[in-house]
Amino acid sequence: MRTLKLTLAYDGTDYAGWQVQGPGRVAVQEVLEQAIEAVTGARVRVLASGRTDAGVHALGQVVSFRTESRLSPETLVRALNAHLPHDVAVLDAAEVPDGFHATHSAVRKRYRYAIHNHPIRDVFRRRTSWHYPVPLDAAAMHRAAQALRGTHDFRSFQTSGSERKTTVRTVYDIEVRRGEGDEHRMIFVEIEADGFLYNMVRAIVGTLVQVGRGQRGESWPAEVLAAKDRRRAGRTAPPEGLVLLWVRYE
Amino acid sequence: MRTLKLTLAYDGTDYAGWQVQGPGRVAVQEVLEQAIEAVTGARVRVLASGRTDAGVHALGQVVSFRTESRLSPETLVRALNAHLPHDVAVLDAAEVPDGFHATHSAVRKRYRYAIHNHPIRDVFRRRTSWHYPVPLDAAAMHRAAQALRGTHDFRSFQTSGSERKTTVRTVYDIEVRRGEGDEHRMIFVEIEADGFLYNMVRAIVGTLVQVGRGQRGESWPAEVLAAKDRRRAGRTAPPEGLVLLWVRYE
Repeated sequence: MRTLKLTLAYDGTDYAGWQVQGPGRVAVQEVLEQAIEAVTGARVRVLASGRTDAGVHALGQVVSFRTESRLSPETLVRALNAHLPHDVAVLDAAEVPDGFHATHSAVRKRYRYAIHNHPIRDVFRRRTSWHYPVPLDAAAMHRAAQALRGTHDFRSFQTSGSERKTTVRTVYDIEVRRGEGDEHRMIFVEIEADGFLYNMVRAIVGTLVQVGRGQRGESWPAEVLAAKDRRRAGRTAPPEGLVLLWVRYE
Repeated sequence: MRTLKLTLAYDGTDYAGWQVQGPGRVAVQEVLEQAIEAVTGARVRVLASGRTDAGVHALGQVVSFRTESRLSPETLVRALNAHLPHDVAVLDAAEVPDGFHATHSAVRKRYRYAIHNHPIRDVFRRRTSWHYPVPLDAAAMHRAAQALRGTHDFRSFQTSGSERKTTVRTVYDIEVRRGEGDEHRMIFVEIEADGFLYNMVRAIVGTLVQVGRGQRGESWPAEVLAAKDRRRAGRTAPPEGLVLLWVRYE
């Protein structure tokens, strides 16, 4: 038996999320497990660094699974991509030590949230960004976001109903910037942390846009954080703007 | 009666093309005419700068139509976008002199063709680029393409069966370049001309990639052009990589 680690990209638009959350659309996990079965002949259960919600994307999701297959990582990448639908792709495969666990071994992740900030929608970005027609001040959003750096109890930015042992997380980096050149109508929010609560990035983005459009002052996100109360934060931003950029392991 | 000119963007993936070409998917023209009817109360026939094929996109398609509506251009843009599906957007509206005809008054157009040149597909570019896994030499493609500049009979790059009065066109600019930064796996072919024959850009791209992968020498596109015989050119590149960038009027 070997333990394999895959790095995965997917356009989450047409999926129920990483895992099935109800009837209807298929889950990314499901199509990956089907492709692994087609290639190796054995049904396995894959573990992911974390679940992404319906409509959320990944550029560098990481999964692990155990297999008796002797295929080389290069062959596995080619064969899996031949079996996967076109909105899911395996970018890399590697053999890892047996103790590796894609969920528990993850030490840091980075997400990006994309906002298309223009009165008229962008037909080519509608699947991968939040169309926000009212002008936003990205510099004010960036300044306001800096209060979230560091180790805090982020329960104000967690969707209620989720269960985590602790709601304390460490945000290593948070930045809000306007795109350049062709991307000048885009605003990107990137957050890097040791872990994320359920819907944490989308709740933070929903809070920051209220600052960006001038409805709230720049000190408001700090106040929301200190309140430790989800009802104080802005509304959760929609899933289509969110992408998991990468996951780091020790 | 006023004559109005609209500038339109669309993701052509899910459309039968600008006009219906057979049973099945709906045409962009059809959804635009429905939106105009919903907004102005009158059914009109819109004229476009040219037809785009099934799966081909536009960033700056231009259409014209005559209407008795007294709505301001700004109001028309907002109202049409509220009625159009999310993969079609009106970017601009303007009143133009009565003689304006989106097809016949066009004097110059520019198209871009995008190639994703990497062994593994890009899940976010699959709708808007041709996935070409074999490495291509963009510089060689650019040099080879320069023979197509100027006024020539382009019948070698026209899909047979199409009917045009003349197959002579003037190419003002043709460039092939590799993308920079995040786009380093992309190759862009841009062609600007006074007009295009049916499938001309896609036939030129299909020819240039054979040079780019080393199957043909850099002088080959010039030979294909001189032969005035469609059977000499490369195969037609698929529609998903093509986008109409803009149309210029006198």
